[in-house]
Amino acid sequence: MQPHELTLADAAQQIRARRLSPVALVDSVLDRIDQVDPHVEAYVAVTAEQARGAAREAEQEAARGVFRGSLHGVPAGLKDLIDVAGSPTSASSRVRAGHRAAADSTVAARLRAAGSVLVGKTHTHEFAYGLTTPQTANAWDRGRVAGGSSGGSAVAVAAGAATFALGTDTGGSIRVPAALNGVVGCKPTYGLVPRHGITSLSWSLDHVGPVTRTVKDAALVLTVLAGHDPRDPASLDTPAVDHRPEREPDLTGVRVGVPRNYYFDHVDAEVETAVRRGIAQLETLGAHLVEIDIPMTRYIQATQWGLMVPEATAYHEGTLRTVPELYQADVRILLEAGELMGAGDYLRAQRSRTLMQEEWSRILEKVDVIAAPAVPMTAVKTGQESVTWSDGSTEAVSDAYVRLSSPANITGVPALSVPVGHDTAGMPIGMQLLGRPFGERQLLRVGHAYERTQPARSLAPAA
Amino acid sequence: MQPHELTLADAAQQIRARRLSPVALVDSVLDRIDQVDPHVEAYVAVTAEQARGAAREAEQEAARGVFRGSLHGVPAGLKDLIDVAGSPTSASSRVRAGHRAAADSTVAARLRAAGSVLVGKTHTHEFAYGLTTPQTANAWDRGRVAGGSSGGSAVAVAAGAATFALGTDTGGSIRVPAALNGVVGCKPTYGLVPRHGITSLSWSLDHVGPVTRTVKDAALVLTVLAGHDPRDPASLDTPAVDHRPEREPDLTGVRVGVPRNYYFDHVDAEVETAVRRGIAQLETLGAHLVEIDIPMTRYIQATQWGLMVPEATAYHEGTLRTVPELYQADVRILLEAGELMGAGDYLRAQRSRTLMQEEWSRILEKVDVIAAPAVPMTAVKTGQESVTWSDGSTEAVSDAYVRLSSPANITGVPALSVPVGHDTAGMPIGMQLLGRPFGERQLLRVGHAYERTQPARSLAPAA
Repeated sequence: MQPHELTLADAAQQIRARRLSPVALVDSVLDRIDQVDPHVEAYVAVTAEQARGAAREAEQEAARGVFRGSLHGVPAGLKDLIDVAGSPTSASSRVRAGHRAAADSTVAARLRAAGSVLVGKTHTHEFAYGLTTPQTANAWDRGRVAGGSSGGSAVAVAAGAATFALGTDTGGSIRVPAALNGVVGCKPTYGLVPRHGITSLSWSLDHVGPVTRTVKDAALVLTVLAGHDPRDPASLDTPAVDHRPEREPDLTGVRVGVPRNYYFDHVDAEVETAVRRGIAQLETLGAHLVEIDIPMTRYIQATQWGLMVPEATAYHEGTLRTVPELYQADVRILLEAGELMGAGDYLRAQRSRTLMQEEWSRILEKVDVIAAPAVPMTAVKTGQESVTWSDGSTEAVSDAYVRLSSPANITGVPALSVPVGHDTAGMPIGMQLLGRPFGERQLLRVGHAYERTQPARSLAPAA
Repeated sequence: MQPHELTLADAAQQIRARRLSPVALVDSVLDRIDQVDPHVEAYVAVTAEQARGAAREAEQEAARGVFRGSLHGVPAGLKDLIDVAGSPTSASSRVRAGHRAAADSTVAARLRAAGSVLVGKTHTHEFAYGLTTPQTANAWDRGRVAGGSSGGSAVAVAAGAATFALGTDTGGSIRVPAALNGVVGCKPTYGLVPRHGITSLSWSLDHVGPVTRTVKDAALVLTVLAGHDPRDPASLDTPAVDHRPEREPDLTGVRVGVPRNYYFDHVDAEVETAVRRGIAQLETLGAHLVEIDIPMTRYIQATQWGLMVPEATAYHEGTLRTVPELYQADVRILLEAGELMGAGDYLRAQRSRTLMQEEWSRILEKVDVIAAPAVPMTAVKTGQESVTWSDGSTEAVSDAYVRLSSPANITGVPALSVPVGHDTAGMPIGMQLLGRPFGERQLLRVGHAYERTQPARSLAPAA
């Protein structure tokens, strides 16, 4: 196995055991980037020389028995909304031409402090405001969308062009591309991981989290990222938790909620089959399945957009006025629409969010996690604008991709996307697990238990 | 001295010492109400029989040596936005015809638990949405405004028609009528006193607090009211504090900030003179005066209105659509204006509020309290719509009354209005003291120290 094929857990362990050199690992990842990125364009910028320099330092430290942290020597790609000192944060936008981040974001600083080697910045749908990341191709089929907005991060991890990556998630932007590329994506609880130094899309809905090859890897990264930072007003002061799941997880007594409504409506048959098979696997592992009803479903879309649209416009109000032509058309239209929204709609969306959080806490007393599809369909072909369901109704691709993601953004509950197979076109299918606020440990435990019953996943061809 | 003339502190102490019967006290207050309320109309409803019943119970308990709390047997008037179980909360509005509160508000329950006797509900400017309370006349001159929106509460206390009262304050509505009627009004720190069971005007700006004859009385009431209640989402979980000031306060070492800008601009000369004399008295008591600059003053009005207008409209959206004609014209206009405000204005106001809070915390590191006028002019004649300043500019009366109040609503810092004399027309003048968040103890201490240098205040004639 080539180093770039290793999971984070295996690579970190081999580095610590001095069986793998950080230099060999980063060289393998950089070579893999050279090999696949011309085809998938996951990266905005690759900082190869800096990465090699950091890897050499990591190797020298390891030789002296010094390990900065649990990610020592492990290469990462960061979604290009996340500040890294001295680099531009392009947001995959011409609006950011000439930008340079003065300082590391909290998450970049924490990755560095844990010893990770930052290899570059990955493509985002412009300013995170979309679900497809059109610049980037799906790692499994270049004629299909990467999903978004953390498309670059998901494709890089799927292809082995990063051992792990970070994404952001405002309406599914970690989970959607993770599901579409067959990798693990974790949107933590709102307020768990600080967003200081990350370009905002919507303050009420934004989250930052890991994109990884396995659930165990996601837990390792989350443990490094989580923890209070007062520079993010939404950051909560919660005690540090080691999120790493135990070795032999047993799901006896774990109550898994299976939605009777909403999450399986207008979902592709192959996606439903694969997800239900995943859920059955949880039952085989000892979990108890409980049917649940998702509350306030008819308010979900209006709440998501009622919060996101005005907040995005508020963030961009300066540049929208001075350089509107530098935005992509799809993003510009949404930003301009935000100028017309009423304060009443925004306030109703906030009130709805509060009610939805209360109702979801009631369900999450009856069950420990909820299992459902992450997205209604696998990756569509590039350029496809809508999908047609079996009942004849049509839906915009973006609306379909946001639909099963947004409840966890609105309520802030943690959510994980875990690969559960491929459809007949070979495209990955993702199962979503949702947990209680600050219940990441339980969530990751269930995901990890499931993952251990599955064969090790191969990298995407990406070429 | 008749019982209704006693301060809360003296009445409570005499009741505890068995020198005053709760029945005698409530009868004296009820008689006073009968005497003055036909002239000033402070009360919406007087619950005389219930009050007498509660006073008899209080007397029997006292006779057995049982005292429910620090307010045992003391009569209170509650602003008619505050729910009392079994009574209507009229909000001084026809919109509330037929209303009945199912349960006590948190503050009403806490007053009862401390032994207070609730005598009735006082007039508010309709739904708190104004600064004059037109139904109620000033306790010192019936041809002048009571101020608002807690006009009824302030007039009742000033006239001895309640030993103390509760008000609410969204843009000055405790402090303005307190200043205009020569009583003490305390707007606590945002989140200190729970608002559960109180009709909202603006969630971001609403506070509930005491209106009393003295600062010492305000401290006694605040100690009873303060403390977490999760049913108010803004209620903070802070440790209980005994706010009662010490017996012989010495202000040596206390830094009093005197604003160089904003708070003395467009202020009546007699008001300025009286307030500056009050400030000089603080210096005589040992305080050190420090000149300070109030930050972001040009954003104050837009922030106050940008928050208040959309939030008020959101609260009233149902009735505004179904029974708009039941609102007073001045309130209806503001509610309808709120339907037209943009989400961008509301978001900018929230962001401005955050910045203002940060800037005020910097000033409140340099000084312990800030001293300024509570309102720019004393009570205007009923029906007067505007004031003209010496530079020829004119200002709406409401705008002038909100002007010096709103910074403490926006920032949430605690603020106290303390009487500092009368103008040549005999109308009361109020000095405002502002403190750090949760710095009520220091604030009340300074107010109490000032108060002890002044002769005991007489009741307003109110007839």
